[in-house]
Amino acid sequence: MLSARNQFAGTIKSVKLGNVMAEIIVQVGDLEFVSAITRSSAEAMNLKQGDKVKAVVKSTEVMIDK
Amino acid sequence: MLSARNQFAGTIKSVKLGNVMAEIIVQVGDLEFVSAITRSSAEAMNLKQGDKVKAVVKSTEVMIDK
Amino acid sequence: MLSARNQFAGTIKSVKLGNVMAEIIVQVGDLEFVSAITRSSAEAMNLKQGDKVKAVVKSTEVMIDK
Amino acid sequence: MLSARNQFAGTIKSVKLGNVMAEIIVQVGDLEFVSAITRSSAEAMNLKQGDKVKAVVKSTEVMIDK
Amino acid sequence: MLSARNQFAGTIKSVKLGNVMAEIIVQVGDLEFVSAITRSSAEAMNLKQGDKVKAVVKSTEVMIDK
Amino acid sequence: MLSARNQFAGTIKSVKLGNVMAEIIVQVGDLEFVSAITRSSAEAMNLKQGDKVKAVVKSTEVMIDK
Repeated sequence: MLSARNQFAGTIKSVKLGNVMAEIIVQVGDLEFVSAITRSSAEAMNLKQGDKVKAVVKSTEVMIDK
Repeated sequence: MLSARNQFAGTIKSVKLGNVMAEIIVQVGDLEFVSAITRSSAEAMNLKQGDKVKAVVKSTEVMIDK
Repeated sequence: MLSARNQFAGTIKSVKLGNVMAEIIVQVGDLEFVSAITRSSAEAMNLKQGDKVKAVVKSTEVMIDK
Repeated sequence: MLSARNQFAGTIKSVKLGNVMAEIIVQVGDLEFVSAITRSSAEAMNLKQGDKVKAVVKSTEVMIDK
Repeated sequence: MLSARNQFAGTIKSVKLGNVMAEIIVQVGDLEFVSAITRSSAEAMNLKQGDKVKAVVKSTEVMIDK
Repeated sequence: MLSARNQFAGTIKSVKLGNVMAEIIVQVGDLEFVSAITRSSAEAMNLKQGDKVKAVVKSTEVMIDK
């Protein structure tokens, strides 16, 4: 169990690999999460379109706009 | 327009104030976002249950769990 | 209104696009802010030299050096 | 030398201690930076009003609002 | 498998609960990691001294000092 | 003295440069830290294999997995 409170199950919609970083888009119901992780991590996990994954965010990283 | 790619409209479910920090829970459809911001920010924005807000996250803060 | 307490008005000095990420330098008075955001975000906002923008930082991301 | 590109010299305007966290406000010229760090860190550094410090932010934590 | 590349197995040395946040110290061999998470997360996980855990950090949050 | 509580002395094992970002791997005893910083920062510091450095992480960025 990870302490990060925000964990949302979805499906990878796209994987875009750069030299160092990768951009992963995850569809969670109607919502689209954009994630920027290292390319080496995307490769180690073999992330690809259609994968069932969770988008995970630590609470201290969530802002509020009103 | 803010560069943060993850912006999800919802409703504040609860506000818990500490001395320095505050925990805000935002209901976004079926999902619940937990946000930890400063108390001074929660007060400056007068955040309270029922407020229409957005939960906002920078892409570099989104991890993937598979 | 965004909960992030650090919002500083300035002018974009340079935009450098990588494959996945982009580096934006913002001049705020005498100070120079360096921002690393996704390329897709920089493109969606059409960021370019001379744009009037704000550099925005969540308080939990600010460290103190003494 | 620290890799964080954003390092701004200023003066501590206020220190507010909670149980676990502390809020430090740093005046940098006309700008005010709000920093949320652990109370134990604020105490270990003996941070107090008037201290000459730097506010430090990693580039990946800086967003752009346009 | 979580995309965060930095995952270090250790033992909880102390848990300090505030109103909103909690400070967890994890001993990893000779190293001590300090973690600030929400109190609600620490309680949901029932974190306590002696627990076998991992300290986890996303690569974009690791700076270099030289 | 920097407020970030997690500072671990080690040696750079590899430096991989992208267009905007760089991935630095630091060996700290038995542990390997992966750091993603801007390329401009890696170049400004002239980071290279074998350098004695510290891996530095703010406490609010450390999660717990149990």
